[in-house]
Amino acid sequence: MDHDLSQTISLLTRTPAALDALLRGLPEAWTHRNEGKGTWTAFEVVGHLAYGERTDWMLRAKQILSNRSQPASDLPAFRPFDRLGQQRESQGKSLSNLLDEFARLREQNLAELHAFHLKPADLQLQGRHPAFGLVTLSQLLATWATHDLTHLHQLSRILAHQYRETVGPWSAYLGVLHCNGHSS
Amino acid sequence: MDHDLSQTISLLTRTPAALDALLRGLPEAWTHRNEGKGTWTAFEVVGHLAYGERTDWMLRAKQILSNRSQPASDLPAFRPFDRLGQQRESQGKSLSNLLDEFARLREQNLAELHAFHLKPADLQLQGRHPAFGLVTLSQLLATWATHDLTHLHQLSRILAHQYRETVGPWSAYLGVLHCNGHSS
Repeated sequence: MDHDLSQTISLLTRTPAALDALLRGLPEAWTHRNEGKGTWTAFEVVGHLAYGERTDWMLRAKQILSNRSQPASDLPAFRPFDRLGQQRESQGKSLSNLLDEFARLREQNLAELHAFHLKPADLQLQGRHPAFGLVTLSQLLATWATHDLTHLHQLSRILAHQYRETVGPWSAYLGVLHCNGHSS
Repeated sequence: MDHDLSQTISLLTRTPAALDALLRGLPEAWTHRNEGKGTWTAFEVVGHLAYGERTDWMLRAKQILSNRSQPASDLPAFRPFDRLGQQRESQGKSLSNLLDEFARLREQNLAELHAFHLKPADLQLQGRHPAFGLVTLSQLLATWATHDLTHLHQLSRILAHQYRETVGPWSAYLGVLHCNGHSS
C-alpha cells in the first residue's frame, strides 16, 4: 500500500503505552528471564527500543533530510546501528526507568518528526544504508514502526517461553511456543 | 518452573490494557486487515479473546473444581472450544466495543478466580481435555495466560504484515515478517 505517514505515526505513538501496560510491575520471573544463552530478556528488549530512539531512527531521518540536495551517488552511508549498545545504556536501570525513558524519547522524536512538516515527495528522498544501499525516507519510517512490532513479537515469545513446561500438553496448540527465534 | 499462580494472574491482569493501548483508535488500515485469505484481522483476534473469556477458561476451571471428588477415570471431557464462535459474537460491534468487553469479562473472571481461594494442592486437580486426555488446573491456568501471549504474537505479525512492502529492503532484518503463521 502507499505509505500514509499518519498511519505510521499512529502506531509509533502507541507502542510505549502498550509495553508499559504489559510489562510495568510484572514479576521479574517474567521480565528478567530470557530464552536461553545469548538471547534477550524483556528488560533488554525495552533497553534496545529506548537506545534506538536515541541513536538510530531520527539520526538517519535527519541525515536523509540534510543531504537532500546531494546526488544519490554522493550520499554517505548511515552509521551502522550498534545492536548491543543498550547493554551499556541499561546498566543500573530498572525496567520502570527504561519504560519511562522509551516513552519520553519516543514522544520527543515524534514531536521533532512532526516539526519537519514532511510532504509526500519528501518520503522519496534517499539515504544510503551500509548493507542495502539506497533506501528512502519512506522505507526508514515504515521500518521504525515495524521494528516496534518485531520486538513486540519477540517479547510475547520471550514471556511465553517461561511457561513452556507449565502449560503441559497445551504447548501443541500455542503457536508462540513454536516460533523459532527468528526475531531475536 | 513451579507454577506460581500470582505470576499467572499478574499477566492475565495486564493483557486487556496492553491491547487497549496498542489498538484503540489505530486506523482500520491496521486493525481491519488480515494476512490473506482465511486469516484473522486484529479486530477478530480481540473478538476471539473476549469470546474465550465467556466460554472457555473459567468454564473449564469450574468443571475441574466441581468434579474434584470424582475418580480420574470418570471425569467427563471439556466441551470443545468453538474457535469460530467470535465471528458470530463480534458482528455489529466496533473494536472499541470488543476491547471494553474483553477488559470487563477478564476482570470479572479474575475476581471469580480470586474468590476460589485456590491452594497449591488444588492446582493438581484434573480435568479431561477432549484431545489431550487428563490435564491439571495448573496447566489450564498457565495456558490461559500463554494463550494471551500467542495472540499478542499473532497481532504483532498481522500488523507488521500490512507494511511488508512499505519497509523495502529492511524486511530482511525484521523477524516478524519471517514468522510463517504458526500462531494463527
